[in-house]
Amino acid sequence: MSTDSKKIGNNGESSTGELSRRRLLGSVGAAGATGLVLGSTGGAIGYATARPDKPTALTTVGSTEEMFHGKHQPGITTPLQARGHLIAFDLAPGTGRKEAAALMRRWSTVAQRLMAGEPTSGGSADGTTHDTGIALDAGPSSLTVTFGFGRTFFERTGLVAHRPPGLDPLPPFSSDRLDSKRSNGDLWVQIGADDALVAFHALRAIQKEAATTAGVRWQMNGFNRTPGATAAPATARNLMGQIDGTGNPKPTESDFDRRIFVPSQPKTGDEAKYAWLAGGSYAVVRRIRMLLDDWEKLPVAQQERVIGRRKSDGAPLSGGTETTPMDLDKAGPDGKLLIPDNAHARISSPERNSGAAMLRRPFSYHDGIAADGTPDTGLLFICWQADPLKGFVPVQRKLDRGDALSPFVRHEASGLFAVPSGAAKGEYVGQRLLES
Amino acid sequence: MSTDSKKIGNNGESSTGELSRRRLLGSVGAAGATGLVLGSTGGAIGYATARPDKPTALTTVGSTEEMFHGKHQPGITTPLQARGHLIAFDLAPGTGRKEAAALMRRWSTVAQRLMAGEPTSGGSADGTTHDTGIALDAGPSSLTVTFGFGRTFFERTGLVAHRPPGLDPLPPFSSDRLDSKRSNGDLWVQIGADDALVAFHALRAIQKEAATTAGVRWQMNGFNRTPGATAAPATARNLMGQIDGTGNPKPTESDFDRRIFVPSQPKTGDEAKYAWLAGGSYAVVRRIRMLLDDWEKLPVAQQERVIGRRKSDGAPLSGGTETTPMDLDKAGPDGKLLIPDNAHARISSPERNSGAAMLRRPFSYHDGIAADGTPDTGLLFICWQADPLKGFVPVQRKLDRGDALSPFVRHEASGLFAVPSGAAKGEYVGQRLLES
Repeated sequence: MSTDSKKIGNNGESSTGELSRRRLLGSVGAAGATGLVLGSTGGAIGYATARPDKPTALTTVGSTEEMFHGKHQPGITTPLQARGHLIAFDLAPGTGRKEAAALMRRWSTVAQRLMAGEPTSGGSADGTTHDTGIALDAGPSSLTVTFGFGRTFFERTGLVAHRPPGLDPLPPFSSDRLDSKRSNGDLWVQIGADDALVAFHALRAIQKEAATTAGVRWQMNGFNRTPGATAAPATARNLMGQIDGTGNPKPTESDFDRRIFVPSQPKTGDEAKYAWLAGGSYAVVRRIRMLLDDWEKLPVAQQERVIGRRKSDGAPLSGGTETTPMDLDKAGPDGKLLIPDNAHARISSPERNSGAAMLRRPFSYHDGIAADGTPDTGLLFICWQADPLKGFVPVQRKLDRGDALSPFVRHEASGLFAVPSGAAKGEYVGQRLLES
Repeated sequence: MSTDSKKIGNNGESSTGELSRRRLLGSVGAAGATGLVLGSTGGAIGYATARPDKPTALTTVGSTEEMFHGKHQPGITTPLQARGHLIAFDLAPGTGRKEAAALMRRWSTVAQRLMAGEPTSGGSADGTTHDTGIALDAGPSSLTVTFGFGRTFFERTGLVAHRPPGLDPLPPFSSDRLDSKRSNGDLWVQIGADDALVAFHALRAIQKEAATTAGVRWQMNGFNRTPGATAAPATARNLMGQIDGTGNPKPTESDFDRRIFVPSQPKTGDEAKYAWLAGGSYAVVRRIRMLLDDWEKLPVAQQERVIGRRKSDGAPLSGGTETTPMDLDKAGPDGKLLIPDNAHARISSPERNSGAAMLRRPFSYHDGIAADGTPDTGLLFICWQADPLKGFVPVQRKLDRGDALSPFVRHEASGLFAVPSGAAKGEYVGQRLLES
């Protein structure tokens, strides 16, 4: 596919592109990254960036395009987008590896087109297979589509031998209140974009391509800040009002890749069976309800002790600014630890978890008022790691035992997905598994 | 309140502000307006604009501020915002005019602060009455908060004598499938902003101020395009993929005010009782579900005949461009009308409705998958008019009888609210009614 022919929404504009470039830097800053974005070449390195062949002056919210092809799938290190959809599918009864492979090929084709800002297809002769038109007028708006396989996918497709141990079920946690109907699934798709109509357009297209091969198991919607709403590069804030994401590993750190992406496997022996996942990652998805009616009654000083960081700017209670490392041993004049023993930031800190690392890349959600009259709102927590047993699991186990935040959150749904590497040109996502 | 002390998110930025200025023009273009925005002085004329005292160079998505005070409330002629919340309240049992007046005063105070990008309050001595912090870092992001009174409000407050005939219940329509629990309400608040966290912050603040005076009756969330997602000023598109809003009345038209805003009433006689509503408007709110699974099966050419306009660019099927007037009598070579008899655009056109005019200013909505497995998605249709009997009612009556679009939409909730004029400085919204 020629990049020259791509429809870009904001061609010919007079904007200097300052906003968009600031945003790219700023939002990756939110995920912890600095420096790599503007210097990278998109797919080649695998970090999201604007199209390298487009003059910077044309980069605006709508015209920013993420790369579908690359070492890693998009939507993992891509800057947080304003709008997100998560959707899980189960394969239809009687559907096997062949149909799943065909679906992954269709999905990859449509994802590539959508991420380039193109319509889904040229339409059929009778006009029924047409693009819905919802994204017309807008550019790609940083759209990403990311695909993952759940544990059950391998049973349905006869590929259990290739199922990596990292997909073993997450252990139960005492604070779980999980709804199984909104958890897991054979297939998982994460959609993100900076425009709500572009994201919805992609969601409809992905659903349509599932056709009779797979049915929707669950679907959730989320959001983050709009590009340009904050002046300076700012770490994301969640609906508790707390800065969230400060401690994320940074792509500039030498061991970032090793911690977030699955390394190459030996060519022989047992582990060769999992070679298909090299360059991939694991996504843990948790729908975490925030009990805002309770949380908001807490005085700010008490909220800060629950978190261990200042609400206004995210600085640790041990002092400094947002990016100052926490001093976990520092005590106040009264001899008490400034960052309390049960503070969320202390318990979840990599220092206290043998360097456990996950890249948190969430969306907030708000689905109105729940049946019990409380706000149905919180975090679509999504974290990425090379091994859930060294990322999410040990941290959540510790939080489960003594996190001061626990009374104010409730894990309502959970998913664990193996997310294949990015597709090379001509390849579809998951091909190395499905044709192994 | 001094405008100099306002916290603006994007001070000191180097952006040229091109994006934001384009957007202001573009989105008002979407609602049909041109020209008035940049030349207006906000509150004085009542059309939304950026702060007149701020250099244009600083105008970006986050720092754009709408005026709370003015002849009309904000959120009526304000450009469409990326995110919206609608929330209806019922007054608590035993609550009367006095408590309602106190609530409107609290709400007006908090709305004014929020729209200026300020926290809700300085906090109480014990720290419990604090701003939730959710909007920290962002500017006002074009936040608007708009208040309306439902029919039942007048009974609960002993003000039935001042209830205008315009609040008489809407007639039933044959296609109505209304859920009374999600319809009407004593009080209605519309929140819009270009940043989702800023909008949510306002929603929580409004709910909190309702305290024990009023309880939530229903609440809905919606969205529009993100500023900058489209290159050129573009009329909004709905989730059917159709350009929506082309025929809206334009503030440049000489009779715009007369059609959208309630005129001054005689000082004596029966109508003096409704003098409080002068400068106000009526909002009709309809939750219109789109049956997308059915709609998307229709070939594009057929969709276009249902609407009467081209999908790609909104041009009428009688020819021209989006803004070309429809030629309702023009026939094709086969002698058939190019814009079919039952086309939505024909039936709803002002020409066919004695010039009936309403200003449509909707949000799309998407609440995931409904219990029946279909997408719970559509339009939070909101229209503004000086008199519902000359705006929404006659048009909907006609549509109800023969609109080709009817099989693809379902009206699931309905509300009718009298929206008072804007508050003057020192005044609260609705004061002229509640202290009449």
